[in-house]
Amino acid sequence: MKTSPLAPEKLPHLAPIEGVEIGTTAAGIRYKGREDVMVMRFAAASQIAGVFTKSTTAGPPVQWCRAHLAGGEVGAIVVNSGNSNVFTGAPGHDFVHQTVAAAASALSVSPETVFVSSTGVIGELPPVDRMVAGVDAASANLSPDSWEKAARAIMTTDTFPKMATLTRTIGGVDVTFNGIAKGSGMIAPNMATMLVYLATDANVAAPALQSALSDAVETTFNAITVDSDTSTSDTLLLVATGQAKHARIASAKDPDYAEIAGAVHAICLELAHLVVRDGEGATKFAEIRVSGARDVAEAKKVAMSIANSPLVKTALAGSDPNWGRIMMAIGKTDVEIDQTKLTLSIGGIPVAANGSIVPGYSEALVAAHMRLPEVMIETGLGNASPGHSFTVWTSDLTHGYIDINVDYRS
Amino acid sequence: MKTSPLAPEKLPHLAPIEGVEIGTTAAGIRYKGREDVMVMRFAAASQIAGVFTKSTTAGPPVQWCRAHLAGGEVGAIVVNSGNSNVFTGAPGHDFVHQTVAAAASALSVSPETVFVSSTGVIGELPPVDRMVAGVDAASANLSPDSWEKAARAIMTTDTFPKMATLTRTIGGVDVTFNGIAKGSGMIAPNMATMLVYLATDANVAAPALQSALSDAVETTFNAITVDSDTSTSDTLLLVATGQAKHARIASAKDPDYAEIAGAVHAICLELAHLVVRDGEGATKFAEIRVSGARDVAEAKKVAMSIANSPLVKTALAGSDPNWGRIMMAIGKTDVEIDQTKLTLSIGGIPVAANGSIVPGYSEALVAAHMRLPEVMIETGLGNASPGHSFTVWTSDLTHGYIDINVDYRS
Repeated sequence: MKTSPLAPEKLPHLAPIEGVEIGTTAAGIRYKGREDVMVMRFAAASQIAGVFTKSTTAGPPVQWCRAHLAGGEVGAIVVNSGNSNVFTGAPGHDFVHQTVAAAASALSVSPETVFVSSTGVIGELPPVDRMVAGVDAASANLSPDSWEKAARAIMTTDTFPKMATLTRTIGGVDVTFNGIAKGSGMIAPNMATMLVYLATDANVAAPALQSALSDAVETTFNAITVDSDTSTSDTLLLVATGQAKHARIASAKDPDYAEIAGAVHAICLELAHLVVRDGEGATKFAEIRVSGARDVAEAKKVAMSIANSPLVKTALAGSDPNWGRIMMAIGKTDVEIDQTKLTLSIGGIPVAANGSIVPGYSEALVAAHMRLPEVMIETGLGNASPGHSFTVWTSDLTHGYIDINVDYRS
Repeated sequence: MKTSPLAPEKLPHLAPIEGVEIGTTAAGIRYKGREDVMVMRFAAASQIAGVFTKSTTAGPPVQWCRAHLAGGEVGAIVVNSGNSNVFTGAPGHDFVHQTVAAAASALSVSPETVFVSSTGVIGELPPVDRMVAGVDAASANLSPDSWEKAARAIMTTDTFPKMATLTRTIGGVDVTFNGIAKGSGMIAPNMATMLVYLATDANVAAPALQSALSDAVETTFNAITVDSDTSTSDTLLLVATGQAKHARIASAKDPDYAEIAGAVHAICLELAHLVVRDGEGATKFAEIRVSGARDVAEAKKVAMSIANSPLVKTALAGSDPNWGRIMMAIGKTDVEIDQTKLTLSIGGIPVAANGSIVPGYSEALVAAHMRLPEVMIETGLGNASPGHSFTVWTSDLTHGYIDINVDYRS
């Protein structure tokens, strides 16, 4: 699989975070010749927050994580790629229990603080014996410096590992946030369709961590779409090891909370954009901005309608300034629109206003913008002034998407 | 453009209908070397019913038709292909007025009984001078036997003309229903995304005709989807010339109304299936049946989620029995599901039940079914017993769809 043309030129190096150790191994779950199991071990009393898929056919790993999040404490995270664990019945739940037991034993943590994910083909149970052996092997090679290996071990159809890092200063103390993500198909708005693991050495209690994460998701992972499909396994976990020597942030009312929330939002946005840049078959990264809406939900509905339209996405792929398809996508939602108030611009170039094309419109100018790898589409609905806005990021629909998905399992 | 592999082997011959004359011409609106303007002229006092796109960015032709439908009478229908007339401002309305005036004059009908459609690229106004000349030329070669020419003149990305015909007996008198349709992309559930013109010599008053048409649409044109995109120009018109010598059917309470309603439903379903068979790039015709729902809306929501899922559609294209993707598509709606009650079968072969794959499941058997050009997917939600059901028809997502749409305008 060729690396996405939208991949960053250089992978960032993720420095160790105090209280986080990572082990990986090639367990042979499904793939040959690459690592496919990852364990993360956290310092005692590390705090965790999480957001999960809204799918009603979520699998046993998501059900397990949801049930154990309330405790707020995390000892380990265990992930395998190759097969997801969804619609697998009682053996699927047994797989989770055996994975958790193996990790608890190998890493000396309490089972109820082990969080798990499985990603890959739906409906086929990963082999439990290989998984247990893989957890043992990965737990035997823990290192604080294996973030890139972790990012690679959780990949499925991804063409590059997705990593982000940033530092902030809290009460005079530097804290680091690291994050890795996997995801490239089944990316849709009902919570990011992917796996994402974030860790920081900041000293933050679980409720404050959850508040920051839940707020960040709406305008980051819930604002991207590749193919409008929603994974059954979406999992986003944020761990704070508390090893940084600043005063503990116990709640969202703490004066230092805003700094944490800002950092969580920034790293989520960076990883969300990386997921779109690795959208299956993507050759374009498109930003869709909708403004002048009666409320944010209305702006988001129109933005998602544009971003998910196969005809808009194929026009993006062809660098075709076929703006009529954008009008079609705006018109197909149930949002009431006054065509005479609608405005549209592409790459900052006005295209339509007052119910028709703008005088002097230059298609050549818009076509030149659309040939760039990053395309900006902006529409003002004119339903309220100034009104509410929402921005969505998406990729184009290409032969590459078809190639990948007509025979994903083979 | 190669003919769809799902096209019928033979085109039906549509016999003349008393009271209907058709003229076509090559007006050079956009295409070269083919006909692109069609006029139909109807006997005096012919009755009309119509259903239109729900798009909020519908164009002037749809606005004109909606405004004049209440009169119930029709003198002519005029259609051009090549450019639609959407988001064209005041010149777009002027185009409609000039088209209507030209047809009224050439065909000696009253302007308010002329119905119009334009189909093709959105946002580019068809040249009004060529249209007026085209209406004149088409009106000069009227014939009762030009149904196939009409079906060809309204095509855009269609690979074959779509026609259907059937006869019924009303009060001892034979009546005929003919229909033509165009549509292959921008096919989605908010009313069939296409143009459809039906005519019969039955003697039916407009209110009864409208009732039969509105009822038929929900389970025919509103039950198909190719790409989830909704056209701005969808128009479905049904004309009854009243030339058949049976007693007039004035309302839905008439004892003969059921025969009319049944015929309208049957011809709508046949044409709707033809549209799916000509779905852009289609190589598979898939029927998605959902049962055991709390109500019809719930069944339809799940069926459409499966039918519109790019990952299900690419699995269809690859003849890949990747049933986990169907589970994903079921799970991504907001319909509450109990996984243990869900059943899934493909081609009549049970795949999943009781929360996991069925014992003895043979993937080879399902793969053999999926290699057929017609694929049947059935799911029982188990939310009610027997519960409500809905059936949707769709096509697969292939390289052909991408080819057609990355450069549709060139």
